[in-house]
Amino acid sequence: MNTHVDFKDLEVGYDVPALPGMDEADIQTPCLVLDLDALERNVKKMGDFAKAAGMRHRSHGKMHKSVDVQKLQESLGGACGVCCQKVSEAEVFARGGIKDVLVSNQVTQPAKIKRLANLPKLGARTICCVDDLNNVADLSKGAVEASTQIECLVEIDCGAGRCGVTTTPQVVELAKAIDAADGLKFSGIQAYQGAMQHLDSYEDRKGKTQIAIDMVQDAVDALKAEGLECDIVGGGGTGSYYFESASNVFNELQCGSYAFMDADYGRILDKDGKRIDEGEWENALFILTSVMSHAKADKAIVDAGLKAQSVDSGLPTIYGRDDVEYVKCSDEHGVVSDPKGVLKVNDKLRLVPGHCDPTCNVHDWYVGVRNGKVETLWPVSARGKAY
Amino acid sequence: MNTHVDFKDLEVGYDVPALPGMDEADIQTPCLVLDLDALERNVKKMGDFAKAAGMRHRSHGKMHKSVDVQKLQESLGGACGVCCQKVSEAEVFARGGIKDVLVSNQVTQPAKIKRLANLPKLGARTICCVDDLNNVADLSKGAVEASTQIECLVEIDCGAGRCGVTTTPQVVELAKAIDAADGLKFSGIQAYQGAMQHLDSYEDRKGKTQIAIDMVQDAVDALKAEGLECDIVGGGGTGSYYFESASNVFNELQCGSYAFMDADYGRILDKDGKRIDEGEWENALFILTSVMSHAKADKAIVDAGLKAQSVDSGLPTIYGRDDVEYVKCSDEHGVVSDPKGVLKVNDKLRLVPGHCDPTCNVHDWYVGVRNGKVETLWPVSARGKAY
Repeated sequence: MNTHVDFKDLEVGYDVPALPGMDEADIQTPCLVLDLDALERNVKKMGDFAKAAGMRHRSHGKMHKSVDVQKLQESLGGACGVCCQKVSEAEVFARGGIKDVLVSNQVTQPAKIKRLANLPKLGARTICCVDDLNNVADLSKGAVEASTQIECLVEIDCGAGRCGVTTTPQVVELAKAIDAADGLKFSGIQAYQGAMQHLDSYEDRKGKTQIAIDMVQDAVDALKAEGLECDIVGGGGTGSYYFESASNVFNELQCGSYAFMDADYGRILDKDGKRIDEGEWENALFILTSVMSHAKADKAIVDAGLKAQSVDSGLPTIYGRDDVEYVKCSDEHGVVSDPKGVLKVNDKLRLVPGHCDPTCNVHDWYVGVRNGKVETLWPVSARGKAY
Repeated sequence: MNTHVDFKDLEVGYDVPALPGMDEADIQTPCLVLDLDALERNVKKMGDFAKAAGMRHRSHGKMHKSVDVQKLQESLGGACGVCCQKVSEAEVFARGGIKDVLVSNQVTQPAKIKRLANLPKLGARTICCVDDLNNVADLSKGAVEASTQIECLVEIDCGAGRCGVTTTPQVVELAKAIDAADGLKFSGIQAYQGAMQHLDSYEDRKGKTQIAIDMVQDAVDALKAEGLECDIVGGGGTGSYYFESASNVFNELQCGSYAFMDADYGRILDKDGKRIDEGEWENALFILTSVMSHAKADKAIVDAGLKAQSVDSGLPTIYGRDDVEYVKCSDEHGVVSDPKGVLKVNDKLRLVPGHCDPTCNVHDWYVGVRNGKVETLWPVSARGKAY
């Protein structure tokens, strides 16, 4: 389960925050810690759900950027492949042995199209999204030059307000162009509603997803009338996968955050009004941090600031503690309110990051722990692979 | 000026966003671009200021995390050494040949103290900050065990509300303990007022800095009465360096952001009410981004989102353009309002990041450009060095 990391020349502290076999207490901070038991339970649960619902699950690698986590999602969770957002991420997954890779995003720059078109040579089924006719022509040229095949999904903007077309006639026009283009294969539709995944209310999320489902159903019907079948109708995230699964039109889920959880997702409510981090999913990802100063009686300063996390979706919470609170984040420090003065210098805390994806992207390693011991270190293999 | 990077095995796109000699137009995005002319002018200007003011300038390496930028600040800007915030950063600078290294932060974990105590063996003067008597004992033990000397500054919290003591008697008590401890040398005071650097008004910043100056003066006088001289009285940032320089008590500046500039600092006003990015400092750092989708007439989607920057201090601005505006940031995308539809797919834009420090920490490379050509690539050598 480990991507061939040779630990023998790695220096704890400078190169890695810990080494396999160490006690959890000896991990140097700040760093990312994965509770392997919780991670495995989350991964198996989503796999079981998808299987029971008759859906494929293409786990979203943009969240974890880790070949090792992806392999766990395939072996234990039955994932059919990976989706990711950048060609450089796709290269990492394909080189790491993942055989079915969807770049759930547009690839438009000539140099990137060339790189994408070379991915099938690594043995990976290669899929990307399109929302532009000129891009279809460019992708076709790239695939022909590389003597490979790129599969294309037409992206529908079903509410996220980013990439994607918004009408069925546009979908059909693009699908026909793909179908007619040398080197390309029309493979279906991409429709991820990213904007509503974090709405607290289950009913609000259901309503937004229904709009997406209706758009996709309309497009799929129109394509069928033109003789174009959709092998993939993909979408769905941690806040909506049950809606897409019940839609009778989607056939692939693209969940990411369920595996690790974070504070922002944890706050959303399930159909019974219960937070999803209180039953549906477990917190498996933590930023381990240490108190480095307690010169004022009522506040502790910890070593995880903006260089150890992204606060775009709010501050981290402190796992398992209601007596102390992370109240402020600057470049190198976190301020923890400690009204009763219970913390002391070198105490460790587990932070649940506000937003897992950009937080993982800051770190080079996941420290996998079980039963108080460091069991493994996994590289964040696609960290920084933004281009 | 380059830290011995061997480019011959690096693949453009997968490993690096560009290679020296390429046209600027061929850089793969998103990535960090440095305008080398602007950077050099900023570095020289701060160096000239410090020299004229009779101050040392210890440039803050936590901002750029780059041995190459630090070397430029020393050779062209006359910087006396580096300050940084983590032992792992200090290790990068010392291994890279920087001879005078201040960790302007507390070092409290036993493993980190051991690493810090070994830094002088690399030929680097090694300094850290303390705010805790137990920590003085631990540092002393570490230095004695390593047979080295660690210089210590007593940190005063002069308004930032993070590490540091707040009264002169505490400063004196700590200084005496350091002075008496084997393996340690009392070297002065650290007093950085981080909380007010970003206040827009010059007079507001002046008032807050005066409080800090008064606290430091009181402590220096009390130390002198005890026979303890301060070799270093350090502090000051891009929003206040002229106040510390005129104080007659500070003798070292610790500016960082002046070299690159960012959108949040750029907005603060100088004594004439003019933004500091309109004369005092130039924007030298940019996130180069490309339009990847323009499926809606009035907005363009660009490829720089939360994985290419930190938005803790606000969204990036678009350099040199007032016809388009970066209005929303998600994991992989930026939404650019383009009311007149002037942008097209693959157009490039230069973003000025909201906050340079945590933005640099996301990237592996600086692409140095001059006259439309890529002149050099500098690794962000201490990227991710948070522990």
